[in-house]
Amino acid sequence: MPELRRDPIVGRWVIISTERSRRPSDFKPEPVVVRATSCVFCPGHEDKTPPEILALRLPGSAPNTPGWSLRVVANKFPALRIEGDLAPSGEGLFDRMNGVGAHEVVIETPDHTASLATLPADAVADVLLAYRERLSDLKKDPRFEYVLVFKNHGEAAGASLEHPHSQLIATPIIPIMVSEELSGSAQYFQMKERCVWCDVVRQERRSGHRMIVEAHGFAALAPFAPRFPFETWILPTRHRSAFEDSDVDELRGLAEVLGTVLRRLNRVLEGPPFNFMLHTAPLREPALEHFHWHLEVIPKLTRVAGFEWGSGFFINPMLPEDAAAALREEAE
Amino acid sequence: MPELRRDPIVGRWVIISTERSRRPSDFKPEPVVVRATSCVFCPGHEDKTPPEILALRLPGSAPNTPGWSLRVVANKFPALRIEGDLAPSGEGLFDRMNGVGAHEVVIETPDHTASLATLPADAVADVLLAYRERLSDLKKDPRFEYVLVFKNHGEAAGASLEHPHSQLIATPIIPIMVSEELSGSAQYFQMKERCVWCDVVRQERRSGHRMIVEAHGFAALAPFAPRFPFETWILPTRHRSAFEDSDVDELRGLAEVLGTVLRRLNRVLEGPPFNFMLHTAPLREPALEHFHWHLEVIPKLTRVAGFEWGSGFFINPMLPEDAAAALREEAE
Repeated sequence: MPELRRDPIVGRWVIISTERSRRPSDFKPEPVVVRATSCVFCPGHEDKTPPEILALRLPGSAPNTPGWSLRVVANKFPALRIEGDLAPSGEGLFDRMNGVGAHEVVIETPDHTASLATLPADAVADVLLAYRERLSDLKKDPRFEYVLVFKNHGEAAGASLEHPHSQLIATPIIPIMVSEELSGSAQYFQMKERCVWCDVVRQERRSGHRMIVEAHGFAALAPFAPRFPFETWILPTRHRSAFEDSDVDELRGLAEVLGTVLRRLNRVLEGPPFNFMLHTAPLREPALEHFHWHLEVIPKLTRVAGFEWGSGFFINPMLPEDAAAALREEAE
Repeated sequence: MPELRRDPIVGRWVIISTERSRRPSDFKPEPVVVRATSCVFCPGHEDKTPPEILALRLPGSAPNTPGWSLRVVANKFPALRIEGDLAPSGEGLFDRMNGVGAHEVVIETPDHTASLATLPADAVADVLLAYRERLSDLKKDPRFEYVLVFKNHGEAAGASLEHPHSQLIATPIIPIMVSEELSGSAQYFQMKERCVWCDVVRQERRSGHRMIVEAHGFAALAPFAPRFPFETWILPTRHRSAFEDSDVDELRGLAEVLGTVLRRLNRVLEGPPFNFMLHTAPLREPALEHFHWHLEVIPKLTRVAGFEWGSGFFINPMLPEDAAAALREEAE
């Protein structure tokens, strides 16, 4: 019998379709292959990107030259533009404003063929520290309400360049996905005086059904009502609302757990394309009792089609309990 | 300069990214190709589908044999199951219920290689009449709150069979996409005492910027804040909240306009994969002053990636004014 499951935070219903159920080996993701050996993000091509905003470099190396282990640059084809004011205006019953924002690229490593799954934990921690640094810096711009950090890995997951990179987009509006989490979790807190994500971690730890790994102060788990097969959330086990308030040790712990999760996904699903998205509190918020930052990892295994676009329901052909079990068994 | 635009009904913001702007010929959709010449939906294979729920047949032909021009059958791999009760239950802080619903397939024509764009208007009207018939019938089941009618055309748009077909799924919950439209339009009505879709049609008719075609009592237009390039809404120009209250003449008018839109999309985008989704009032509602049924057509031209999944913003590389102009110029 298929099941309807409700996400306890945003209230979204998903259909877990056991009729269409699958084993991990039944998914045939479009494999992520590295075709080129060199690209505009590779060392020696620093002049092909906008100038670096941030870089980790060998002592003495000049900006925008080789000698770096990580670079952050503006996106050459930005979705939003850094210059100007919002200048909101109407057109009859419609509302518009200028597309003001920031769109940056984190070039995670000089190695074209590496990935967050294969990089050493220290290098992954550097990527996370770069996110923290850029969040803290963009916070100073009063035009921005939010910074969404995300990664597209593999062409099927929307990556247009194969060199390991992630992106961040600062927006003048709090994204709807985040405001739904904020209001859902505030409502929960009002009833219970507890953070809903803290409660989820406690329940998953007790039952064990959907826990994938808990280590270094982080839990990786399959959510109760996942939109996608093998959807995985990684969150600090201690309550924290703002990612950018994490200290180096915490980010080092996240690097370990993120690496573990990505390696296990690679083994179980044979190197699938994936996205991850960081949900942290909006820039202007003080520490929030009800909101808990987390990273959502979604392998790209299924197609979203008319039913999903029209209804907002997702049909997931895999029980999260089965996905978590497969990823748990893949111990390193 | 990119623009942020807000949908006047659900309040969703989209980014119209002019930096990444494209001409129609820049889109390279995965072409929809017909590979097989025969399949389980073809005449002579009636025993390979569940028995027909509804069919248009030659006088004297027996059910589940050839002689039909349209068949409706249960989906052999249903996302939801028709038997049983919802039996809602909890698991700690989580909520679930049985996946009770109906999942049907409308086989639109016996011709494996036809499509709604190439079928005569009468045959398209028969498909719409089948939707109406099934909606009216499923309404009698008190377990269902909603029926979503949708179509996936082409593999990239989620179709697993190439024979022309659409689907409907009856759900025990009103889909979130519909309840957002219901509450947004109710709020608008409360302020203005007018239907927001009626206002949109009036404004688009006046400006002409985003109108694609108006004929036979229907308007096809590019929405002000489309999620996707060439997104097109088709709606009756007279206020109507429930699709199933349409009379034969109205559905015949819709068939003409839908055929026109699909043929123009085919010519401008070289036969793209697409989805369409019917948004009508929930089954239990009387005629609503604030809700206006409509069909949303979305060609599959872009990938949804980490930023969209994490934020709920959509990045659309094409101005709807340009999309509408391209489709207007493609007069038949």
